[in-house]
Amino acid sequence: MEIKLWDKETFLARLRDVGTKQYHHQHPFHIRMNAGQLAPNAIRAWVANRFYYQRNLPMKDAAIISNCPIREVRRTWLHRISDHDGSTPGTGGIETWLKLAEACGMSREEILDERHVAPSVRFAVDAYVNFARSKPWPIAVASSLTELFAPDLMAERLAAFQKYYTWVKPEGFDYFRGRVVQARVDSDEGLQLTLQYCDTPALQEEAVRALSFKCDVLWTILDGIQAACTTS
Amino acid sequence: MEIKLWDKETFLARLRDVGTKQYHHQHPFHIRMNAGQLAPNAIRAWVANRFYYQRNLPMKDAAIISNCPIREVRRTWLHRISDHDGSTPGTGGIETWLKLAEACGMSREEILDERHVAPSVRFAVDAYVNFARSKPWPIAVASSLTELFAPDLMAERLAAFQKYYTWVKPEGFDYFRGRVVQARVDSDEGLQLTLQYCDTPALQEEAVRALSFKCDVLWTILDGIQAACTTS
Repeated sequence: MEIKLWDKETFLARLRDVGTKQYHHQHPFHIRMNAGQLAPNAIRAWVANRFYYQRNLPMKDAAIISNCPIREVRRTWLHRISDHDGSTPGTGGIETWLKLAEACGMSREEILDERHVAPSVRFAVDAYVNFARSKPWPIAVASSLTELFAPDLMAERLAAFQKYYTWVKPEGFDYFRGRVVQARVDSDEGLQLTLQYCDTPALQEEAVRALSFKCDVLWTILDGIQAACTTS
Repeated sequence: MEIKLWDKETFLARLRDVGTKQYHHQHPFHIRMNAGQLAPNAIRAWVANRFYYQRNLPMKDAAIISNCPIREVRRTWLHRISDHDGSTPGTGGIETWLKLAEACGMSREEILDERHVAPSVRFAVDAYVNFARSKPWPIAVASSLTELFAPDLMAERLAAFQKYYTWVKPEGFDYFRGRVVQARVDSDEGLQLTLQYCDTPALQEEAVRALSFKCDVLWTILDGIQAACTTS
């Protein structure tokens, strides 16, 4: 039996189907977060653990560039590194996440030294970075496509924080605001590259698996945070 | 016997010593190039083969960023990727090298498809990229310090091309002109990072070996080009 190349609509539908079924918007921790049911310590645990994910993203994106021999693609992907790191001190996504942590009453120091990061969160994030280092770059790009589903969750989260978690200083929400817009730009770029360069049946199927893997990463991060909240 | 940390002057002297003894300015091919003794086919072979080095540099630099957990260092290193790739189509070091190839009477196509690249040149360049991917980032940074010795060679080369190789269209020399300036900026940055982050006796010695390794890469590239010129 010959395996045929999916047309773009079918390929896109397979990718979207993964998000519908596996994206972490359905994780019990996120459902409770967005329903206003989390205690301050749980919110703080989420912010401190998720920082480990944020701080590793530029290294993940540099791995994709390092593995990509196509100049135009590298040029498209490059802004992600400075989006995270900032072009100058005091700017960029990592910095904005640190401001969220401070708005939640934590010190930069306790975030930067990773004392609150659960081992399972570390393993999941490290798995994502290693995936980007070791897989063909179009597959690593496909794994980033959870961004397709991020803006809705981010908008819902921003509303939930403003409504329920009024103890968080509002200047902490800049990261969420920025990502609602930026995630759309990024996911458009990532989707175009995936549709263009995952151009064999094997690569298309691997791209769908890569997105499923990435959903596992995000889900496992929340499992780890939830477990840390329960036991602490 | 305890091995002691070199002070900065000693460390710098050891690094400079590697350059004095092993940098490819002393390779017979470069000596003949700068004395105006190369035939057009040898110049073309050099341009076409050296392109493979140029085109791999952004992937090498992205590997360093991918391995580096320090935001400030990544921010310092990042401009190298867009220096090579350009921020927009038609710009950047790779593009400028393609213009050099055209100024030497070759087509973009025959450069981009790598038909002229000798296997030994490919192996040497690939070894450099793999070095950056697999070694600790401060050691990979140290391997870039051949840039310390580049401006003098580049200035000498530019003068030689203008004097001896008048069949090359002068608009091809933009790469050399740009690098005389940029290599000083880059090597200053690389040197500061090496002196700061190679901060144990073991790392200092490994940094010196890394620079020696990089000299081997550049020397082997010229060996390969010279052999290709002799046999073709």
